[in-house]
Amino acid sequence: MSQPLRLGIAGLGTVGMGVVRIVRQQAALLSARTGRDITISAVSARSRDKDRGISLSDYAWETDPVALAKRDDVDLFVELMGGEDGPAKDATEAAIAAGKHVVTANKAMLAMHGQTLAEQAEAAGRALRFEAAVAGGIPVIKVLTEGLAGNGITRVMGVMNGSCNYILTRMETAGLSYQDVFAEADGLGYLEADPQLDVGGIDAAHKLAILSSIAFGTRVDFAGIELEGIERISIEDIRAAADMGFKIKLLGVAQKTGRGLEQRMQPCLVPDTSPLGQLQGGTNMIVLEGDAVEQIVLRGPGAGAGPTASAVMADVCDIARGFSLPVFGQPATTLEAATPALSVLPAPYYLRMGLVDKPGALAKVAKALGEAGVSIERMRQYGHADAEAAQVLIVTHKTTRASLNVAVEAMEGTGVLAQAPVALRIEHL
Amino acid sequence: MSQPLRLGIAGLGTVGMGVVRIVRQQAALLSARTGRDITISAVSARSRDKDRGISLSDYAWETDPVALAKRDDVDLFVELMGGEDGPAKDATEAAIAAGKHVVTANKAMLAMHGQTLAEQAEAAGRALRFEAAVAGGIPVIKVLTEGLAGNGITRVMGVMNGSCNYILTRMETAGLSYQDVFAEADGLGYLEADPQLDVGGIDAAHKLAILSSIAFGTRVDFAGIELEGIERISIEDIRAAADMGFKIKLLGVAQKTGRGLEQRMQPCLVPDTSPLGQLQGGTNMIVLEGDAVEQIVLRGPGAGAGPTASAVMADVCDIARGFSLPVFGQPATTLEAATPALSVLPAPYYLRMGLVDKPGALAKVAKALGEAGVSIERMRQYGHADAEAAQVLIVTHKTTRASLNVAVEAMEGTGVLAQAPVALRIEHL
Repeated sequence: MSQPLRLGIAGLGTVGMGVVRIVRQQAALLSARTGRDITISAVSARSRDKDRGISLSDYAWETDPVALAKRDDVDLFVELMGGEDGPAKDATEAAIAAGKHVVTANKAMLAMHGQTLAEQAEAAGRALRFEAAVAGGIPVIKVLTEGLAGNGITRVMGVMNGSCNYILTRMETAGLSYQDVFAEADGLGYLEADPQLDVGGIDAAHKLAILSSIAFGTRVDFAGIELEGIERISIEDIRAAADMGFKIKLLGVAQKTGRGLEQRMQPCLVPDTSPLGQLQGGTNMIVLEGDAVEQIVLRGPGAGAGPTASAVMADVCDIARGFSLPVFGQPATTLEAATPALSVLPAPYYLRMGLVDKPGALAKVAKALGEAGVSIERMRQYGHADAEAAQVLIVTHKTTRASLNVAVEAMEGTGVLAQAPVALRIEHL
Repeated sequence: MSQPLRLGIAGLGTVGMGVVRIVRQQAALLSARTGRDITISAVSARSRDKDRGISLSDYAWETDPVALAKRDDVDLFVELMGGEDGPAKDATEAAIAAGKHVVTANKAMLAMHGQTLAEQAEAAGRALRFEAAVAGGIPVIKVLTEGLAGNGITRVMGVMNGSCNYILTRMETAGLSYQDVFAEADGLGYLEADPQLDVGGIDAAHKLAILSSIAFGTRVDFAGIELEGIERISIEDIRAAADMGFKIKLLGVAQKTGRGLEQRMQPCLVPDTSPLGQLQGGTNMIVLEGDAVEQIVLRGPGAGAGPTASAVMADVCDIARGFSLPVFGQPATTLEAATPALSVLPAPYYLRMGLVDKPGALAKVAKALGEAGVSIERMRQYGHADAEAAQVLIVTHKTTRASLNVAVEAMEGTGVLAQAPVALRIEHL
């Protein structure tokens, strides 16, 4: 048997402790599968005294993650602290510079600094792997980078933030408002310390940026993502969508178009009978389409100690087995800069708006759409109390986002809107 | 860049030509991703003159696949001929003996000779890989062997034969009999040359045996599978199941029980709202459960030139990248012999039977069940014309297959059955 692979783990939250647990409880299995013992040399976290349920006294303790990353008895640095800059990035760079492999779950760091870090790791001949950064327990990085290596990837799509999906499905099943469910989710600890990362779609967009890079051979381009969170989705939208056979999901889509790379992370309507439409709660789903494989759908838990640690250990085992491949599937220096193309492909849209109760209001909305070249497929006006605005729903035929924006701007100039319209793309999968 | 990886391909049917097409059309992509050129040196098939739509004149032609496997200009032998013995096995063994890597889509060969071939390949230090052997384009072997390497696998389950799923869903949607849909599928070329491989569940069981070995660290044990085909499923069963909220699927399940390894491939009832229940046509679905990851579901095309070639190319790319791991995920010599345990875990069952029209007939059936300790959860008797047997459906509470068999045997002794009962397990997923 080869030399053991010695880990240094920085960050001992739920995921970090999940990794410690697997390394201890599955030692025999890991050794049988990788041909090496996998051991832990040292750990690091903010608080040394916190009771984490497992004794860590067998492992050296480092207060400074950078010191941990450089230790002679560490072959592989496991970064589970999070944060796009600061200690996570410092320690990752220190580990690579010291000739260590790195496994991380840090999507923010990869989305912002992935190119630099990949170039550093590849120049040093060391692995930088991040299965746990996208879609929790689903081994989507491996499937995309290796399992579909023979494919020209045509589209990547999915629900990648369990918290948002929890909020949207809970609003629907309990009939609660966004604000109520947000407060509930926050109380249950389902949201990031900065909840905007979740509900603003940023966390999901980090993940999409990583998948895009691998899928299309482009440099990670977080800034090129058309990004919209779920904060404006109301229970009325969810009910209206359901009424027409749709669910609302925070959906990520990346695809190459004639004009460049389209990356979107935004709430969309999807058919309620589609696999994405049926996804409940914190579960994630990724759809991968390739020119040979057609379509693969992966579903699994998007977070949690066990599933995320499972993804970390997949990377650890690959490194133990000696697998070596470029960080984003092809050498970082060969990745092309992405040319962002925002929603150039036409789609049907859902529009919800409140109209003031004046004769001719609806006609003005219809005129604004018509003049922008947007044609109406379905329209519903709901009954309303005297004091309220009339709720109007419109489903358009296929149109571009640009045309829709022209129409919405024209509507806003007519003075008949009681509030700004909600416009959501409809994705037929 | 490293030396090119030179393929020799035996078998130029749809999958073989799919591989040729990818190697030619994606040359630049494959090279960027693997760091090596992937080329074809030589090919072999039964008929040299057949028009396959692509000129093969750049490649040497071998009539004998064994000669192809041993060629000096072949580094990797791609076996796409099929058949559990004969030329496929001879050529695979010859390739390994000559120091070549092997990639195959041959589930029958692996299910019957996997242990021997794995020992040969590992002794020779060569890869023997078979992503395409299970679930077409879904990279399930990679997900199980690598993506979930940190998990103790607890259960593997799925729909692994697209032809059977096509027949069952077509019966349901078109309201046709098994015989009619079988004839239709056969006419469309959806079935193996020996259709019993499909409808008898053998092909699916080959796949299950391979997955079990990787999941549980046991030697491939095809003989240990409790196997039942779909030939006895009637349109009445499909309708009755639908009436109670179920679909009928040819479902494979493998799990470790206290008594040993349970492997089943048999038609089961699954809830019609479950992901497996909603699987239509030729699509495959594999559910993998592990102690850390909880549950991962993979869905994709189970057959076809593109998807299967995609899986073959995943293996080819891994070998080009220099990845090396044991054939079944841990060294073949460390795999334990499986102890088969047949359906020891209790489950509810669906029973359909025709009763002769005699007073007390139903009472006799109920008595036989009661005496075997099988309790009835639901029972329906359908109206019938005078000359026909009365159709009776029973859903039992959880019971063992052994108790159910005792009950069925007792019923058969009473003389009230017009035909042998159909008994199907109900899987709540």
